[in-house]
Amino acid sequence: MQISPKISPHGVLETSLYVSDLTRALTFYENVLGLKKIDAFPAGRGAAVQVGSGPSVLLLFCAAITLTGGTFPEHGAEGHGHVAFRIEPEELEAWRSRLREHSVPIERELVFRGNPPSLYFRDPDGNSLELSVAAIWPL
Amino acid sequence: MQISPKISPHGVLETSLYVSDLTRALTFYENVLGLKKIDAFPAGRGAAVQVGSGPSVLLLFCAAITLTGGTFPEHGAEGHGHVAFRIEPEELEAWRSRLREHSVPIERELVFRGNPPSLYFRDPDGNSLELSVAAIWPL
Repeated sequence: MQISPKISPHGVLETSLYVSDLTRALTFYENVLGLKKIDAFPAGRGAAVQVGSGPSVLLLFCAAITLTGGTFPEHGAEGHGHVAFRIEPEELEAWRSRLREHSVPIERELVFRGNPPSLYFRDPDGNSLELSVAAIWPL
Repeated sequence: MQISPKISPHGVLETSLYVSDLTRALTFYENVLGLKKIDAFPAGRGAAVQVGSGPSVLLLFCAAITLTGGTFPEHGAEGHGHVAFRIEPEELEAWRSRLREHSVPIERELVFRGNPPSLYFRDPDGNSLELSVAAIWPL
């Protein structure tokens, strides 16, 4: 039996990826994806970039530091994470050009539910990134 | 020199966490967080839950399967990820009750920029989750 009101979160406020070289990662996310750094954490722990105009933040963390805990509960993972960024259908060609300009290879293009293809590529740490339209999900 | 138009993603469409037991994870995200499953992937690869009313999806992946690649570019990580979910200030007490009802301990409460505290807790795989108001970030 649930006593508390029927609440649920209004969105994902923070999405995390782990990187080994924060400067290199920030250069990539700022220059290739056009995201804006809004915060950097002490001691090279990580940085925050804003994604879009809604309240959504991508956190780039150095796992070697976040794993030690301290003020924040420990977290940190080894391997390649996955994040998809939302684009509009008419922007697809511009994104192909952008990736090409920065010599970022498109690893794969996959079509979901008859939508424009989702573009898969890697950040400098090998995290699997995707550019996708929202309509690939039955929301 | 950047030739392509000044575009950037409109938001994070997919945020990923890795879990070892998909059924257990889904029970947690549905019952404790009140999120709705919108898709399940073949062969126990993972599932998708919708977060909020905007286009935002949390993907729960079994890394043992995603690491093998196949149709999708490989990804998968070992360790504890971090995701923050957006709540409204007036919902904080209801969330404390909800977590208590489900015997989910609050690991820490941290105050950022004078806002209501962010609540930190763990999912059954030890991923570090947070419930936070948007105003903790200078967006």
